[in-house]
Amino acid sequence: MQQQISVITLGVADLARSRRFYVEGFGWTPVFANEEIIFYQMNGLMLGTFLQSSLEEDMNRRGLVRPGAFTLAHNVESAAAVDAAIARLRAAGATLLRSPDVPPPGGYRGYVADPDDHAWEIAWNPAWTIDAQGLVTFGL
Amino acid sequence: MQQQISVITLGVADLARSRRFYVEGFGWTPVFANEEIIFYQMNGLMLGTFLQSSLEEDMNRRGLVRPGAFTLAHNVESAAAVDAAIARLRAAGATLLRSPDVPPPGGYRGYVADPDDHAWEIAWNPAWTIDAQGLVTFGL
Repeated sequence: MQQQISVITLGVADLARSRRFYVEGFGWTPVFANEEIIFYQMNGLMLGTFLQSSLEEDMNRRGLVRPGAFTLAHNVESAAAVDAAIARLRAAGATLLRSPDVPPPGGYRGYVADPDDHAWEIAWNPAWTIDAQGLVTFGL
Repeated sequence: MQQQISVITLGVADLARSRRFYVEGFGWTPVFANEEIIFYQMNGLMLGTFLQSSLEEDMNRRGLVRPGAFTLAHNVESAAAVDAAIARLRAAGATLLRSPDVPPPGGYRGYVADPDDHAWEIAWNPAWTIDAQGLVTFGL
């Protein structure tokens, strides 16, 4: 199968609150929105924010819990950009999980949680490349 | 900020078991692996599978739970390909959450869980395009 992820869908309790966070914090623009779901066109995949009750019905599984055992990451071009992004996200309602510092492999990263307690790592990883379209390529 | 997700990192209990599932079920090849983390180069972002204890230490947050309130999706080119992918993933150890059927907007989709209980939707969505590099574009 193609080495490809088409969508990341996050269960959210309050769609308007989540939208405010992603629009004001990250500065992202939805490509689609209704009363149940919002999609953001990302770098070759979609980010979806879906009312948790609707997500549970769609996946036929009740009782999803937060915070789940996962994180998303948004990489930026410098350590200063990590600090700036975390400040901006906190101003838009994010909770700080880890103040930025240097991880064992080098670079710089911190973690915040969105209003639904979904984690985001904000990282500068000098070994990985990000092109103008936002396509990220692994490097060592 | 760039409308971009760099990494999706899943917390896993047993890295070898998870690797078998992604390699044999999805047929994906890691780009990096050590005793703590495995990365797969995806369509413009990375999929990481990280020992849950290491993820919790890295994000400075203990007690992550599964199943979390999210799903990943892998889209394919036809309804028949959805059935085939779900059969292959189940043979590699996935648990069926929802047998494939037609969702309200049309298309065809089912859900499975990986060996760590992380959900994957396998979907055919005729309105969205997927190019040869696996880059997915929203459509209605």
